[in-house]
Amino acid sequence: MDRKINVAVIVGSLRKESVSRKAALALAKLAPEHLDLHIVEIGDLALYNEDVEAAGAPNSWMRFREEVRASDAVLFVTPEYNRSVPGALKNAIDVGSRPYGNSAFSGKPAAIMSLSPGALGAFGANHHLRQSLVFLDMPILQQPEAYVGGAFSLFDERGELTSEGTQAFFQQFIDAFASWIEATSKVDALA
Amino acid sequence: MDRKINVAVIVGSLRKESVSRKAALALAKLAPEHLDLHIVEIGDLALYNEDVEAAGAPNSWMRFREEVRASDAVLFVTPEYNRSVPGALKNAIDVGSRPYGNSAFSGKPAAIMSLSPGALGAFGANHHLRQSLVFLDMPILQQPEAYVGGAFSLFDERGELTSEGTQAFFQQFIDAFASWIEATSKVDALA
Amino acid sequence: MDRKINVAVIVGSLRKESVSRKAALALAKLAPEHLDLHIVEIGDLALYNEDVEAAGAPNSWMRFREEVRASDAVLFVTPEYNRSVPGALKNAIDVGSRPYGNSAFSGKPAAIMSLSPGALGAFGANHHLRQSLVFLDMPILQQPEAYVGGAFSLFDERGELTSEGTQAFFQQFIDAFASWIEATSKVDALA
Amino acid sequence: MDRKINVAVIVGSLRKESVSRKAALALAKLAPEHLDLHIVEIGDLALYNEDVEAAGAPNSWMRFREEVRASDAVLFVTPEYNRSVPGALKNAIDVGSRPYGNSAFSGKPAAIMSLSPGALGAFGANHHLRQSLVFLDMPILQQPEAYVGGAFSLFDERGELTSEGTQAFFQQFIDAFASWIEATSKVDALA
Repeated sequence: MDRKINVAVIVGSLRKESVSRKAALALAKLAPEHLDLHIVEIGDLALYNEDVEAAGAPNSWMRFREEVRASDAVLFVTPEYNRSVPGALKNAIDVGSRPYGNSAFSGKPAAIMSLSPGALGAFGANHHLRQSLVFLDMPILQQPEAYVGGAFSLFDERGELTSEGTQAFFQQFIDAFASWIEATSKVDALA
Repeated sequence: MDRKINVAVIVGSLRKESVSRKAALALAKLAPEHLDLHIVEIGDLALYNEDVEAAGAPNSWMRFREEVRASDAVLFVTPEYNRSVPGALKNAIDVGSRPYGNSAFSGKPAAIMSLSPGALGAFGANHHLRQSLVFLDMPILQQPEAYVGGAFSLFDERGELTSEGTQAFFQQFIDAFASWIEATSKVDALA
Repeated sequence: MDRKINVAVIVGSLRKESVSRKAALALAKLAPEHLDLHIVEIGDLALYNEDVEAAGAPNSWMRFREEVRASDAVLFVTPEYNRSVPGALKNAIDVGSRPYGNSAFSGKPAAIMSLSPGALGAFGANHHLRQSLVFLDMPILQQPEAYVGGAFSLFDERGELTSEGTQAFFQQFIDAFASWIEATSKVDALA
Repeated sequence: MDRKINVAVIVGSLRKESVSRKAALALAKLAPEHLDLHIVEIGDLALYNEDVEAAGAPNSWMRFREEVRASDAVLFVTPEYNRSVPGALKNAIDVGSRPYGNSAFSGKPAAIMSLSPGALGAFGANHHLRQSLVFLDMPILQQPEAYVGGAFSLFDERGELTSEGTQAFFQQFIDAFASWIEATSKVDALA
């Protein structure tokens, strides 16, 4: 490909020191050169409300939708809250998907990395998010699945991955996503 | 029982004319006399962020947690957004469940009615919410399942149910919930 | 209670040396005295087929339905196959739930322990099974959730739990189920 | 493309007069000429059991695995049993996915049509199946989602679709799958 692939990265936690954010930044560093990963912020998005839309969408919604729309693909990096997608992330999905018939996400290839301090790797959040992506018509990377456990010991103080095994897995994951984007970006052309 | 059972009703849509809100009000009217259903608002809750919690929880969070904590049971009435729980509702769950070890929802019996304009009755939102309730330790009513389709024609202009069949189903649902609350409220006493 | 509580235990793996079976037997030993856990076998059940039902249900189906029907509660102990419930276990559920209107499972309190060799503890199987239990109208124990990882090192050669921590968790789980059965067995009486 | 695309169709019901089977046949007729849809039978598959595998896989398992392996893509057409995938279909997935490291499904593009007599269109089965396909590494068609309700009145006595609207939807679905197969079959080549 001749040009850079623009990947919107949506981080499911709003904490400054969020491990999901650190994982997103680590993936951005490891990504193939033709992939440009950048975080699209969601912390300022008002809760979705159709009445508010009718009265005029807030700037934060417009900004978010434009950033997603300008991207070629979307990477979600998220923790799990209460066995599902964090409310802040689900709200961003709701905001970006509206108004009806004009979703910013439509057709964009996607991948998910989910992380938890414990062993389960946010499996519940990962698969709930996948169910939303069906409706959003986002071709989703299947393998490698990325359920990352023990998240609080993944990074050192500078935000670098502490284990070579984890780094190799992150590399495999982002490379697979790059291939997935390339393949599925041809779907529309063929259709 | 001698005293009123206090049921917090959480509505998943923020629209003023939301069908979910109308359904909640209809259920409140049909409920057995010893059940007191009242809506706990979620539209003013800031997005959950652990940094904000550490700096001091906003009043809106404290108010929501107290109202849930003061209830004996929780009824969720919700639409589906993008095949899952609306972000605003998921955020309310996240806010009410924190800080860790001090969830406002813990142990309270719950029921879910989900509604959609189309045929599917928000099945996806209904079951994603159930997965969260496992973590929240809320004994959940299984039957009758309430996937209510064709939601935009359920109510007349005064907010009254237009069909006797629907009204009978709503009655059956809220009566079953009343029995469920009575039975499961003994779990802790027995434990 | 004056009489024994009869708990049907359904094991999701057909392997002789299945870790799920060992976990089921360990739970049977740890159960409070008034709980009688016994495994109801599912390996001989022909695949559910409504045509076969119409021609006359096989003996294996009749035997299974009777054993479930004779129980007061049902405990599922299962691995995960392909991120969901093993086919053999799902088939047993289908067989036991039919014919329509005459499900053997109806109303019986249930609990799930899921196990995997890896870290994820068969979370996917656990929650898919929960979705079926909603339809089957089985009041389901919410906490403690039992996602048991590292399953291949749980038992010694005699089938005894090797770790005190695991044994304490198994004890907590089966005790919580005992309380759950006692509480929810009153639902019908109250209704 | 120069050659025919070979699509294995797996039908989730074993009934002779199954509506899912009729839908599969209708889709086969409507498919673009370069797509060759044929049903791979699952009714004779013994329940998956690793001990049986170790002793020598039955002929039925070998036959099923070979037929899936010989295909370019897989189409699932299924009802819902107990809010999930029918046991017979889940068993077929388990059989085809083993032995470990040698899954017959790996990498093959997939699509799902789910059907129910009622309104819900087997949503629960559809999405549980999707969760398995993640593990099986099968790129899955996202849109159009195919939750087909009112299934018992879809076909006339000769098995022809009775409604033009349904026929148009079936056409759209199978055409989208054809495009999806073409696009995603390049993933490996690119990787």
